Amino acid sequence: MDRKLFIPILLGTVRKDRQSEKVAKFLFEQVSKHTEIETELFDPREMDLPMDDEGGYSGLKEKNTKWRDAIIRADGLIVIAPEYNHGYPGSLKRALDVLLKEYIHKTVGLVGVSAGGFGGARVIEQLVQVVRELGLAVTFSDLNFFKVQDFFDENGKPKEEAVYRRVDNFLEELVWMAKTLRWGRQNLPSKYNQ
Amino acid sequence: MDRKLFIPILLGTVRKDRQSEKVAKFLFEQVSKHTEIETELFDPREMDLPMDDEGGYSGLKEKNTKWRDAIIRADGLIVIAPEYNHGYPGSLKRALDVLLKEYIHKTVGLVGVSAGGFGGARVIEQLVQVVRELGLAVTFSDLNFFKVQDFFDENGKPKEEAVYRRVDNFLEELVWMAKTLRWGRQNLPSKYNQ
Amino acid sequence: MDRKLFIPILLGTVRKDRQSEKVAKFLFEQVSKHTEIETELFDPREMDLPMDDEGGYSGLKEKNTKWRDAIIRADGLIVIAPEYNHGYPGSLKRALDVLLKEYIHKTVGLVGVSAGGFGGARVIEQLVQVVRELGLAVTFSDLNFFKVQDFFDENGKPKEEAVYRRVDNFLEELVWMAKTLRWGRQNLPSKYNQ
Amino acid sequence: MDRKLFIPILLGTVRKDRQSEKVAKFLFEQVSKHTEIETELFDPREMDLPMDDEGGYSGLKEKNTKWRDAIIRADGLIVIAPEYNHGYPGSLKRALDVLLKEYIHKTVGLVGVSAGGFGGARVIEQLVQVVRELGLAVTFSDLNFFKVQDFFDENGKPKEEAVYRRVDNFLEELVWMAKTLRWGRQNLPSKYNQ
Repeated sequence: MDRKLFIPILLGTVRKDRQSEKVAKFLFEQVSKHTEIETELFDPREMDLPMDDEGGYSGLKEKNTKWRDAIIRADGLIVIAPEYNHGYPGSLKRALDVLLKEYIHKTVGLVGVSAGGFGGARVIEQLVQVVRELGLAVTFSDLNFFKVQDFFDENGKPKEEAVYRRVDNFLEELVWMAKTLRWGRQNLPSKYNQ
Repeated sequence: MDRKLFIPILLGTVRKDRQSEKVAKFLFEQVSKHTEIETELFDPREMDLPMDDEGGYSGLKEKNTKWRDAIIRADGLIVIAPEYNHGYPGSLKRALDVLLKEYIHKTVGLVGVSAGGFGGARVIEQLVQVVRELGLAVTFSDLNFFKVQDFFDENGKPKEEAVYRRVDNFLEELVWMAKTLRWGRQNLPSKYNQ
Repeated sequence: MDRKLFIPILLGTVRKDRQSEKVAKFLFEQVSKHTEIETELFDPREMDLPMDDEGGYSGLKEKNTKWRDAIIRADGLIVIAPEYNHGYPGSLKRALDVLLKEYIHKTVGLVGVSAGGFGGARVIEQLVQVVRELGLAVTFSDLNFFKVQDFFDENGKPKEEAVYRRVDNFLEELVWMAKTLRWGRQNLPSKYNQ
Repeated sequence: MDRKLFIPILLGTVRKDRQSEKVAKFLFEQVSKHTEIETELFDPREMDLPMDDEGGYSGLKEKNTKWRDAIIRADGLIVIAPEYNHGYPGSLKRALDVLLKEYIHKTVGLVGVSAGGFGGARVIEQLVQVVRELGLAVTFSDLNFFKVQDFFDENGKPKEEAVYRRVDNFLEELVWMAKTLRWGRQNLPSKYNQ
């Protein structure tokens, strides 16, 4: 029997009082319960992303070995992306840009987060273009959080039950893609997976 | 032994004197020679895309059964996309929008075409967002044609040899994704493939 | 006193039973009442967009003189854009692509329309890139219609009053940009306005 | 006579050995010579962008008063944007996200920079969406630097003369938009400019 899928979660912001942290904690809890997935939560605040360097061709991958080792071992990735001015937070991009070939032929699921009524729909569209260049195959079943500041109760529990079904749908497709691509990496030769 | 992959090619424009037709014919010839791929060329001029309807929820799929049957049978798709004002031609979008669930869990390779010096880089980025919503998993190895009006000689042969290696790279990755996703469709249950 | 601003409205779809027609009619009525704007409604079904041609460098601008004369005279444009597969309808792109320099240094306001809950947020983002290349300066105050099929009563009247305030905001910014750019076209020399 | 236009330049990366710094210095020199523009070069390395905060609603604008005062006084902005994985560098986004209403009704010109052959065409498309949300009106005349590592000689001088004409075109349009919008801000009431 195949080992569990390893799918880390990246919280895509360092903003003070970031609301997306609630989404990250909630999703980490849900994914942890999934029988086929092993996960781990990554926070750019705890990564080494100095203000005088960025991008994948520099020494940053050597400074972030925990992140790098996770992505090397990963079958996929979940990115929690709040929408800042219709784009992604700088800290999210800095974290993604640290690596390159480590992502290739793995899957990614995108989680959009908004204070307003668009559920991060626009940041997701921009990320679709970025993660493709990283070699990640993005799923087409996103998760959107609208009015995130009102979404959770004081214990971090969603106020509406409907979200659990949406999380299930999101993970179902992510697992399908992760297993499919794992089979490809294990069985079909590629210059990108050696 | 698995049957050949079926990967049709869609020429994405109806413009008079369209230069992308040369790209389509050249690629059709190259792909036809590939030992693992069977192909077929689709031209929106020969599809039934009337000027009083568009989109996938209408009766257009019933009017375009050849296109629909091809995509149902397909393992992937190659889209030849000239860049018009940084976006895709209307005819290309109309052809894509005819279908929906028929595309799911198949792959697509994007070919950008420009009269100028950007090789369709921008139309590719817009299409990445569209094909994802269609359920297609796009490869990250594009093919770009710059200054297409000068690219081919009078017999439709590329003036530079380097393009053959680029086509090989493009197809290598497309075949990898097509085989991987075919395995998934055949072996992993999904509500999208029934 | 300056003449009224001329700001035509383009309905961006030819789909059968198109819901955006209701938006177009409603907006046409609202804009017509505006004391500073003169308008006119354009429908791609009534334009000459044959299935064997598209794009601005061909003879299509000569076939669509009513559209061309309107844009030449216009101070701005309102585009009503339903979202099809995260992108714009082919018919909308075909209509826009007919012209080029006629658009330069005028403004455009974008109206996103969805059957679902995203209000056309994604088609707007793609159009922002296209209209910029056309030389149009897009406003940052969009109008979004969610669940359009439920939005209007049987007489085409919006069920909720809040939309009138949103239309006012949308038009206020559009008028500001239209007047500002008109001043520029009339007073500052440019190779693009001769 | 109107005062000179104030158009600061933002260098959009903190990467070690960043090639875009050469572009920034070259452009700073060219813009400084322009009779109608006053400029100033901003470097995110010298801004206060701590790794535990980002975005415009926090206290970052108070920590970056030099940047804020410049944008308040500015008529426009030039952004030098290297393309990292088809998107913008995190540091560029962090710098832009510090402010919001300060940008409204001003213009921006985008400069794409690539190590490869696409001249930053894709990062420009993503930024077009971001700067619009900031309230900036982007010009449609970009500047693209291809193969930037080979573009300048050891003294930072471009190896090819053609770039000077392209800079002139870029600035001509930027000046047109900056003057036009300045007239609007000074003469047309708007809730955004008070």
